[in-house]
Amino acid sequence: MARENVSTKEQVLVEATRLFHARGFGGTSLNDLLAAAGIKKGSLYFHFPSKRDLALSVLERARSQFMEFLDEALLGSTPEEKLHHFLDSALAMHERMGFVGGCLWGNTALEMGDSDEGFVGFVAQVFDEWTQRIEAVIADGQAAGQFRTDLPARQLASHVVAAIEGGIMQSRLRKDKKPMTVCIDAIKTLLRADASSVAR
Amino acid sequence: MARENVSTKEQVLVEATRLFHARGFGGTSLNDLLAAAGIKKGSLYFHFPSKRDLALSVLERARSQFMEFLDEALLGSTPEEKLHHFLDSALAMHERMGFVGGCLWGNTALEMGDSDEGFVGFVAQVFDEWTQRIEAVIADGQAAGQFRTDLPARQLASHVVAAIEGGIMQSRLRKDKKPMTVCIDAIKTLLRADASSVAR
Repeated sequence: MARENVSTKEQVLVEATRLFHARGFGGTSLNDLLAAAGIKKGSLYFHFPSKRDLALSVLERARSQFMEFLDEALLGSTPEEKLHHFLDSALAMHERMGFVGGCLWGNTALEMGDSDEGFVGFVAQVFDEWTQRIEAVIADGQAAGQFRTDLPARQLASHVVAAIEGGIMQSRLRKDKKPMTVCIDAIKTLLRADASSVAR
Repeated sequence: MARENVSTKEQVLVEATRLFHARGFGGTSLNDLLAAAGIKKGSLYFHFPSKRDLALSVLERARSQFMEFLDEALLGSTPEEKLHHFLDSALAMHERMGFVGGCLWGNTALEMGDSDEGFVGFVAQVFDEWTQRIEAVIADGQAAGQFRTDLPARQLASHVVAAIEGGIMQSRLRKDKKPMTVCIDAIKTLLRADASSVAR
């Protein structure tokens, strides 16, 4: 019984993640969720007392997966290799999804940005953790002489995250690899150490 | 009578723009629109046969206003001044809105990105026009020795638009000027000519 419950709960989370990612929180109805997960209303409410509880569980689960993705993507023998591998991995992931759905964090930021405080705080924290991970790699690369040092690592990291979100948006809009590729290639060049080695 | 119709139509467009910007297309109901514009259903349908027609009219009107904004923002005696004035104007505009609502184009791209082809094409075209305007200024600045030349003007312009969209998203999420300011300051430094003047 316990195992069955875990399995039903996980199944609801998988389907809810897919639906929220594709249609947004507001665009997903209770009936969509019940149909996709193949369960009855009582079973859904047993696991998730409200749609908001379900959405927060979806975001919690997606956050864990995203942090695992960052662990796997930020790999390389130098800070520059780590950053480039992360950028290429992000592009590859969105390409595998056919540039459908975009970034769950960006979507939630835009859908909930002005409304639900719980969602906003959660998504802001995910962006903070993401930015801090990139900042650490950039700071290491600055110390190693691989990245420009005329801007703080924190500012460069915020810029990288902002540019990636914008690049994902453009590739999703056009269902085309090019905007995100162009954006990522620009980041690689813009961060290079020689860019800041001239005295002004 | 003609004057009254024009006025009603304009009034609906103003209120629909406000609602779509704040809640999205899917989050705005017919009743929301009727209540906000203070009209009856028949009057709404007289001017806009469907919600989709209304949304496209809202986007058309917003596009005109955005192109006027670009005309006023891209001012200065040099290309660098023009770009900086545009960046500062974009920040000032979002600050005036209290970082509520975000960018209508970014929102529509994220809300409609995978669905309605008519909306997607329209929004992609607005982003193209915007990027071309920025590209022209960057190309002038490259010729004048103000901007780096190791990346094509088109690529730098796409990067600028992507980074601004990401910066708007972050400032909206946190209702804080800082993320967008940090992003814009980074753009100004990253594009500087001396960044590419070193032989590799």
